[in-house]
Amino acid sequence: MREGRKTRQGAAAVEITGLAGLPEILPGADLPDEILVGVKRHGMALEDRDVVVVAQKIVSKAEGRVVLLADVHPSAAARRMAKEMRKDPRFIEAVLRESKRVVRRSGRVLIVETRHGFVCANAGVDRSNAGADDCVTTLPRDPDGSARRMAAALRRRTGKRVAVIISDTFGRPWRLGLTNVAIGAAGLEVLQDLRGKKDASGQRLRATVLAVADELAAAAGLVLGKLERVPVAVIRGYRYTRAGRRARGARDLIRPAAEDLFR
Amino acid sequence: MREGRKTRQGAAAVEITGLAGLPEILPGADLPDEILVGVKRHGMALEDRDVVVVAQKIVSKAEGRVVLLADVHPSAAARRMAKEMRKDPRFIEAVLRESKRVVRRSGRVLIVETRHGFVCANAGVDRSNAGADDCVTTLPRDPDGSARRMAAALRRRTGKRVAVIISDTFGRPWRLGLTNVAIGAAGLEVLQDLRGKKDASGQRLRATVLAVADELAAAAGLVLGKLERVPVAVIRGYRYTRAGRRARGARDLIRPAAEDLFR
Repeated sequence: MREGRKTRQGAAAVEITGLAGLPEILPGADLPDEILVGVKRHGMALEDRDVVVVAQKIVSKAEGRVVLLADVHPSAAARRMAKEMRKDPRFIEAVLRESKRVVRRSGRVLIVETRHGFVCANAGVDRSNAGADDCVTTLPRDPDGSARRMAAALRRRTGKRVAVIISDTFGRPWRLGLTNVAIGAAGLEVLQDLRGKKDASGQRLRATVLAVADELAAAAGLVLGKLERVPVAVIRGYRYTRAGRRARGARDLIRPAAEDLFR
Repeated sequence: MREGRKTRQGAAAVEITGLAGLPEILPGADLPDEILVGVKRHGMALEDRDVVVVAQKIVSKAEGRVVLLADVHPSAAARRMAKEMRKDPRFIEAVLRESKRVVRRSGRVLIVETRHGFVCANAGVDRSNAGADDCVTTLPRDPDGSARRMAAALRRRTGKRVAVIISDTFGRPWRLGLTNVAIGAAGLEVLQDLRGKKDASGQRLRATVLAVADELAAAAGLVLGKLERVPVAVIRGYRYTRAGRRARGARDLIRPAAEDLFR
């Protein structure tokens, strides 16, 4: 059944290391510093072309994107919606403030388009791990900007050019469970376009654009712990394409409204 | 900004190795054998709890799920649809035969629900890498069964209990680019349910069910080459939950119709 072995042995190995033991991140925390301390504590040093994946939650906390529910005064619309959904009206208000529009609402599920353009549940507003019971975190205002600043700070302090991805867990319409996706990115092309190239059998590849930043985020998801505090992963050995001049980050992953069949 | 360091250093490291140099897979090929040859050629041996991720394309080929377009006689409906979409009517016919229903159609994009229940473009029918210009591959008839048989064969030949995932690249409605997802799985729980558990700050986690089989497939996607022939990846170091008695494989990832807001 074999048709001649290739001699090429290229064992493409990618390694993902989770950085455990980071301290609780508070508003104003110096995340690049915390990451470098964590990297060192794991006996590592950042290398050129590493990908540093940072859980959205600690980026939001460091940037002060924490809302005290006690300070939120729900609108009449939020109160009505919350009653129907059996949710805290202050939570719904926090979600609506982060949203451009509601995409779907059913039972207790609220799918919105965030101000950034991401379609996800509750606009990424999240109660878990926010630090206190009556707090929620909201997504960073500009996750691509956050990623760029982190990549720049890491480069200043180490001399290494790494890519940075900020990841969050999103649901999917037809599949159960959450997966990590990139909501912010810097230093790499988030999409790898294979269109027009030929595959191993010489057949032209059609419609093959890989969302590499999302695959990197999902890979990091294997070590990013929700129950243990592992908010950062370092991915080594993945040969990504460095960001070109027109790269804008994870926002390049958002499907334009004109192509969206499921609004 | 630090709130006391954890002493726990647990460097959770996960390693993904792509197996290059596999031969062209033909109908009837002994895939477990090819995988073991590939593993050995990379100086490795399978270990308990490894995850072997196999690209759908070679599973389909080994199982003879290859359709010669010359043998396909398109129905009137397929011809009509193909004309509107400027596609090969035989290709559309092959897609419709694999489909339960059309979910969306727009321009040249055809989103269907496959007989298995997956929602994806073209029912997973694919021209690239099928071996010849007028051939297409279709998804395995029972990808979970294929994964179970592979896991059993690998166990018989090595004595090791590994998980097997069959992955394919699917698009997403609101995000550009494809990512690898699990269309077949054996040996592991595809969903990791964290509901009711408490996170690091003692806050109860809500709605946190991770689609670990999809994150594993996406991680493998970092090394599964479309242009180079790397159809198998071995993931080592990820502590998954072994499949319980009620685990059915990747079909457990399909959102039930009653919960689906985007049909």
